[in-house]
Amino acid sequence: MFEINLPEIVAEVASAFACYERALVANDVAALDQLFWMSSYTLRYGVAENLYGYDAIANFRATRPPINMTRRLMNTVITAYGRDFATANTEFQREGSTVTGRQSHVWLRTPEGWRIAAAHVSLMPKQAGA
Amino acid sequence: MFEINLPEIVAEVASAFACYERALVANDVAALDQLFWMSSYTLRYGVAENLYGYDAIANFRATRPPINMTRRLMNTVITAYGRDFATANTEFQREGSTVTGRQSHVWLRTPEGWRIAAAHVSLMPKQAGA
Repeated sequence: MFEINLPEIVAEVASAFACYERALVANDVAALDQLFWMSSYTLRYGVAENLYGYDAIANFRATRPPINMTRRLMNTVITAYGRDFATANTEFQREGSTVTGRQSHVWLRTPEGWRIAAAHVSLMPKQAGA
Repeated sequence: MFEINLPEIVAEVASAFACYERALVANDVAALDQLFWMSSYTLRYGVAENLYGYDAIANFRATRPPINMTRRLMNTVITAYGRDFATANTEFQREGSTVTGRQSHVWLRTPEGWRIAAAHVSLMPKQAGA
């Protein structure tokens, strides 16, 4: 089986993940677009939308109002499987919110660099009493 | 770059995905446990819980009440990246519900067979007017 968490691979993916986070908070649409795999196979389940294919994701970014995306990440886990595949999962809380979100990324090494092939973002419903 | 969607690999993952779906609907805890990668790296974001590591996931399964999990899958997309790595993403509606859920799996080929290394399940909030 492939090796798990080769340090240099984890470092590469952590760097790409940090680029994505900076771009998200800054609503840097060009950078966000660049970090998604330019493929019809790419998909993104967002908080309130299901987007199939690179073009649908880019169109969503282009029309999204620039809301405040400042957020705190918690329990981030980056795992590399061999040299070409990785996952990045994190919990987050947006500024001023007590709702916990979860963001899951599948990263691929492409000829252009590490790219996101699949993403899933959701907000966890508040628990009774919480 | 690795080849995308080699037919025999997609068929293998589709078979594993179908096993998982049957086990979920039947609440076959042993089968569900078997299909998750036995690793501390494995994680599962569920509808209302964030579980880190195989043991936490198995413990959740063991204590979950056997609610009716019958559901309809929609827009299922299985994508294989090379021979050892794949994603399975699907929308679903539970019986009697109009809420749309989303389920994302990362599948790995392990010495024991295809296993889920990361999962994210969420329900999409109803839209105004929907």
